[in-house]
Amino acid sequence: MMKQFDQSDILALPQRKRAQLINSCSGLKSVNLIGSIDKHRIKNVAIFNSVVHVGSHPPLLGFMLRPTTVPRNTYDNIRENGDFTVNHVHQNMLSQAHQTSAKYDPEVSEFDEVGLRSSFTDRIKSPYVTDSPVKIGCSFKNEYFIKENACRLIIGEIEELIFDENHQFDDGAINIEKSDSVGAIGLDTYVSISVLQRFVYARPEERMQKLNGS
Amino acid sequence: MMKQFDQSDILALPQRKRAQLINSCSGLKSVNLIGSIDKHRIKNVAIFNSVVHVGSHPPLLGFMLRPTTVPRNTYDNIRENGDFTVNHVHQNMLSQAHQTSAKYDPEVSEFDEVGLRSSFTDRIKSPYVTDSPVKIGCSFKNEYFIKENACRLIIGEIEELIFDENHQFDDGAINIEKSDSVGAIGLDTYVSISVLQRFVYARPEERMQKLNGS
Repeated sequence: MMKQFDQSDILALPQRKRAQLINSCSGLKSVNLIGSIDKHRIKNVAIFNSVVHVGSHPPLLGFMLRPTTVPRNTYDNIRENGDFTVNHVHQNMLSQAHQTSAKYDPEVSEFDEVGLRSSFTDRIKSPYVTDSPVKIGCSFKNEYFIKENACRLIIGEIEELIFDENHQFDDGAINIEKSDSVGAIGLDTYVSISVLQRFVYARPEERMQKLNGS
Repeated sequence: MMKQFDQSDILALPQRKRAQLINSCSGLKSVNLIGSIDKHRIKNVAIFNSVVHVGSHPPLLGFMLRPTTVPRNTYDNIRENGDFTVNHVHQNMLSQAHQTSAKYDPEVSEFDEVGLRSSFTDRIKSPYVTDSPVKIGCSFKNEYFIKENACRLIIGEIEELIFDENHQFDDGAINIEKSDSVGAIGLDTYVSISVLQRFVYARPEERMQKLNGS
């Protein structure tokens, strides 16, 4: 039975129910652990489900940061150091990844608290999640303040990209089903993915061709 | 075998391969058909995989629009009429949904061209995709010009929300596995999802509790 909510119905819901409903309605979400580091070399890692592709040339991604009315270690660290890492969450690290959403004090490292290993490369100051199947090192490029609700869209430029070359389609895309990367519904529900179909680049004169051999 | 690309390796890739790689690396993507209408009442529908949650109170979502250096019917219509619809893609409408990414002339309706049914409500001028399992009517709130690559982040406020009440978790989230909504990898790969685990709200003192009975 289809149910129709208008905005006044939505706003009348209890706060947690409204958050669950609205967080889930926009569709599937990416799940990434964002790694950062502060000036005392305390490593931070926190889960985000708003990382989006922004562009390929230059290679850019973005993510939404909640209002900075409470301390946001990730934001402070990124502005201090100028870089961050984006790490896919493997099915085997789900509990640890979700637990990074707890509000830990700035002086503790979530890596230690939840039991995730960290590692570094020469190019990026922020820590990577060692056991993540797809790791992206980004430099901070810009932030856009969303005045409608005081969130920020953070834009990062991809400086390096680390993944298993056996998890790549022939055309260059990373097969994140093979890498066992998870996605999310709403705030707290993690999903595995199964490839249904690939398609060729769509043109008006050629109707709905599926891509074979992938 | 883990492969490490730095930005110069990425930029040296052929354009299509680079687009495939960078579009896939940020993780799972949402897949939505955005419906809009022009002043001549020509209905437009186009697939987007960048819709993200922005906030619950007020209920806001956003999506990325490519540079308007070529005509963008969706953008023009939204600015003209002030609203748009966001419609989940059901597994059974994959071919039609992907085909909306072809560059049709502004005077043709993609609904007719690809074979998707449209319908209207009293509140929103733009057409919905009738057979979509989760439909969101939005008013245009704002746009943010991303100067790094001339994309725009479009912000919409959720005015109404239509879905099957049998596809809802007890806590209010829409179970988009049950609604058979698809997700995407990169530019052309559609995936189904399976719920792995739900978790309770994470707190530092309570470690990694799974949510039962969901």
